[in-house]
Amino acid sequence: MQKKNSVFIATSLDGYIADKNGGLEWLDTIPEINQIDTGYDAFIDEIDALLMGRVTFETVCGFDIEWPYKKTVFVLSNSLNELPEKLKDKVQLINGSLSEVLHIIHQKGYKRLYIDGGRLIQSFLKEDLIDEMIITVIPILLGGGTPLFSELSQELEFECKESKLYLEKIVQNRFVRKTQLSQNI
Amino acid sequence: MQKKNSVFIATSLDGYIADKNGGLEWLDTIPEINQIDTGYDAFIDEIDALLMGRVTFETVCGFDIEWPYKKTVFVLSNSLNELPEKLKDKVQLINGSLSEVLHIIHQKGYKRLYIDGGRLIQSFLKEDLIDEMIITVIPILLGGGTPLFSELSQELEFECKESKLYLEKIVQNRFVRKTQLSQNI
Repeated sequence: MQKKNSVFIATSLDGYIADKNGGLEWLDTIPEINQIDTGYDAFIDEIDALLMGRVTFETVCGFDIEWPYKKTVFVLSNSLNELPEKLKDKVQLINGSLSEVLHIIHQKGYKRLYIDGGRLIQSFLKEDLIDEMIITVIPILLGGGTPLFSELSQELEFECKESKLYLEKIVQNRFVRKTQLSQNI
Repeated sequence: MQKKNSVFIATSLDGYIADKNGGLEWLDTIPEINQIDTGYDAFIDEIDALLMGRVTFETVCGFDIEWPYKKTVFVLSNSLNELPEKLKDKVQLINGSLSEVLHIIHQKGYKRLYIDGGRLIQSFLKEDLIDEMIITVIPILLGGGTPLFSELSQELEFECKESKLYLEKIVQNRFVRKTQLSQNI
């Protein structure tokens, strides 16, 4: 099975993943979106595991909800040593450089990975390790916050392969990294 | 005829309108796009005049091309006093606050305006004066540059009314400002 690192995330129209106060309330600007299928379950079905950073992991743990992931979750952290008892069969701690971490995860048989969390996505992009990004744009200008994208030393070309409009309000675009192969065609 | 302020612009996937060096070469990442109709002419047909800032005006004047606009162009500048002779029937200088400028332009009979240039778009957004934005996303991460959007003191809600995929590579989304009326529906 082919290795693939995918992103599935929502941003504001101005490209933020959290508002000026770190808040996520703006994700519910158009609450009807939660009533329809925007492809999240189908996306999860297509991945083997999630990889997230410590901050995202602790944010999810802080939500007053059941553990939301049905696939194995790897948490990349150099500081976290222990997991809550109830998550020990669902979550694995991992550390090292991104290439080391990917090697370990691939060796365990997980090839198609959902890379989640702003900082981890930025780290992956800096090393050109993202193959696909499905970005749902909540059409609000926040005017500041935590950006999805950060500085890069090299430009990275993608291609938009799919675009879906939901409720005539929200757009979801799927960008795929342009490969050397497709660059030569 | 209803007054409307529209934006029609291309950005990188990470939201820049010029790269780290102020360059625009990345707009030609997918040169085939120049061979197809992406709605620019139809958009121009629907407007009465353009309004741009001095920097954008001087950039266009610096291109080695014929004057590209078939509609009247207003150039907002507090420093520019004179226009090149050959542009005097095509371009009008204007100055003042945005509300003053809009009042003058509307009085002249131009209601549907194409607001162009990064700084002017940002100024319009700061005063919540943009009704519609047609944004063509060139799917490249530049990793830095001149952003389309800037800090805002208030959040602004839009709705994505249309999404078009070109060549399975480039996506164009049309965002319309959510009005008080639609907020009450």
